[in-house]
Amino acid sequence: MSVTTPAGFVAGGVHCGLKSNGNPDLALVVNQGPHFDSASVFTANRCKANPVLWSEQVVKDGTVKAVVLNSGGANCYTGAEGFQTTHEVAERVASNLGIGAIDVVVCSTGLIGLRNDRPTLLAGVDAVHAALKADGGDDAAHAIMTTDSVSKQVVVDRGGWSIGGMAKGAGMLAPQLATMLVVITTDAIVPAAELDAALRASTRVSFDRLDSDGCMSTNDTVTVMASGASGITPSVEDFTAALTEVCSSLAMQLLADAEGADHEIAITAVNAATEDDAVAVGRSVARSNLFKAAVFGNDPNWGRVLASIGTTDAAFDPADLDVAMNGVWVCRNSGPGEDPATIDLKPRKVTVTIDLKSGSCEATVWTNDLTHAYVHENSAYSS
Amino acid sequence: MSVTTPAGFVAGGVHCGLKSNGNPDLALVVNQGPHFDSASVFTANRCKANPVLWSEQVVKDGTVKAVVLNSGGANCYTGAEGFQTTHEVAERVASNLGIGAIDVVVCSTGLIGLRNDRPTLLAGVDAVHAALKADGGDDAAHAIMTTDSVSKQVVVDRGGWSIGGMAKGAGMLAPQLATMLVVITTDAIVPAAELDAALRASTRVSFDRLDSDGCMSTNDTVTVMASGASGITPSVEDFTAALTEVCSSLAMQLLADAEGADHEIAITAVNAATEDDAVAVGRSVARSNLFKAAVFGNDPNWGRVLASIGTTDAAFDPADLDVAMNGVWVCRNSGPGEDPATIDLKPRKVTVTIDLKSGSCEATVWTNDLTHAYVHENSAYSS
Repeated sequence: MSVTTPAGFVAGGVHCGLKSNGNPDLALVVNQGPHFDSASVFTANRCKANPVLWSEQVVKDGTVKAVVLNSGGANCYTGAEGFQTTHEVAERVASNLGIGAIDVVVCSTGLIGLRNDRPTLLAGVDAVHAALKADGGDDAAHAIMTTDSVSKQVVVDRGGWSIGGMAKGAGMLAPQLATMLVVITTDAIVPAAELDAALRASTRVSFDRLDSDGCMSTNDTVTVMASGASGITPSVEDFTAALTEVCSSLAMQLLADAEGADHEIAITAVNAATEDDAVAVGRSVARSNLFKAAVFGNDPNWGRVLASIGTTDAAFDPADLDVAMNGVWVCRNSGPGEDPATIDLKPRKVTVTIDLKSGSCEATVWTNDLTHAYVHENSAYSS
Repeated sequence: MSVTTPAGFVAGGVHCGLKSNGNPDLALVVNQGPHFDSASVFTANRCKANPVLWSEQVVKDGTVKAVVLNSGGANCYTGAEGFQTTHEVAERVASNLGIGAIDVVVCSTGLIGLRNDRPTLLAGVDAVHAALKADGGDDAAHAIMTTDSVSKQVVVDRGGWSIGGMAKGAGMLAPQLATMLVVITTDAIVPAAELDAALRASTRVSFDRLDSDGCMSTNDTVTVMASGASGITPSVEDFTAALTEVCSSLAMQLLADAEGADHEIAITAVNAATEDDAVAVGRSVARSNLFKAAVFGNDPNWGRVLASIGTTDAAFDPADLDVAMNGVWVCRNSGPGEDPATIDLKPRKVTVTIDLKSGSCEATVWTNDLTHAYVHENSAYSS
């Protein structure tokens, strides 16, 4: 049940010393081939961390042979020296594996604005290389955790070929990539161009629609590597469907572990003129602090939903919107509908359905509530 | 020191019964002329409350003779019956004053999605008419309060003519109009077209740059009435400057009383290519829950400032940004600068300065921190 479940991969996770609490803080996932196809997506934030600046170059040729990931420091806003640290880490990983550094993706997560200690990291790279093993995926998944309370892993097995994935992320989950590091492995044969198309299709409906707190990170990276070790070439449709399953599972695991959240909220806009409209409407509600605080208070405040929808330029008639919470249509034709008192918002999972009555498209955006614990964790944790 | 300080106005405030706690809940401000020029701006939210839908029609001809405002119910998302209530309130105010309903602006604030009791409101209209007096501005200012802890009022006296203003607002403060009701009076002679230009110039740099919690309301209204009773016609420049002073003072009073806030944060982007860029950058930081939670925790987290700036399309070099907090340049060239430990964020007022190094424009956006009290008030208060 990890990134080493698909054939052709080894992985490891160790404590190298970046984290003061002694927890694992360095992970390595290596593709042993015979194929080395890959695809990646990165944060849309213009202020990118050094590992992202490096890895954006690495992935351009569609070949990635290893991903090295450290927690305990994001190496972000650390200038040229920080970039050099990233580069040296890639060089050391490559040298240990007998490959080129330009095939090594580097990911970092943790505090931003602080430099990672380079000798500590480089010694760790040797240690994690020594720790590589055929069932090392679980170790790797644990070594990338920061404020995560659990590791996030998934495997989708198609009989003959499979996809494995691991993710970290518990805060700064936002659009155009929820903040996170994700490594996905598959033993299917998938050429890089197809892998890229499948990855973009999958992230578009999963990670990109996760908007826990509206804050976009600086280090987000999703890399998928295809070893071809199964010898099987699935159809584009089958592979994309399986990859979407993997991404959706990891996205829901991120949602469930968001910092300080009491509720997981699925906001679905239906009968939209376009899918983009549906996403825009869902995201506007997911971004409303007032709505999110109301859900925390178990208050089915549909007025705050309408006030959020009204900030978008989606196609709808402001006087003719319907809104349901947990299936109860509390708002009909932009006015009071069924009695909100019948809604029980105490369970963790909440659904909001918005009928835009303007077409036949729909989309779901996921978010969390705004809680005392969110404020506490993010005022106390200097990231 | 109220809307009745300028000559030509009477006002009143009473308790009519919309608020269960017995506090004043109905206000009326009447222009007695000889001029009846006016200008107004409203929420940019497409889901507007009934009083806004009514008042948008009223203000079109540049003539407003009275503004009636109730707290204790926003009359928003209440359908045709709610619109009829607004209309009847305007009719009753007009009938009592011997004017046309089409010269009466109606404003409402309080819970959304609930109907106001029409007989209660109409009886209140008669009561507040009977309570009109030459120094009734203070009563009016108190009658529009909801979760406000203090009334917001200001007078700018230019010797011979003056401008008075009152505002309510303590939550849902967001762009393209901080959520609020504002009535401004002046005894200067200002034709409606000039008044409109002056009001738009003034709100653009005051209310429009207040972004307490990113949530745009449904009832925002700012109306200015000019009685001409002073007999003085100030220059456009002088009048606009005075009106900007009034709007800025009221905006800062709103900021200071924002629900649950511990800090007032002024975010200034300097050396921007355009003023729009500077506003976009300031607003992106003002919208970052992570940054706002950090300020609540007295944590000078400049990394979260850069991560917010990176989400904009303003002109800047991501590798060459400087950020100061309370005057200490903690970030230089997008890397660590002076020691953040020297910054004391315990005082209520915080400044953030962002040097974009891309031009010569600047702008300031104001916001509050994200606190436990904000979450509490907005999860408990069903608005």
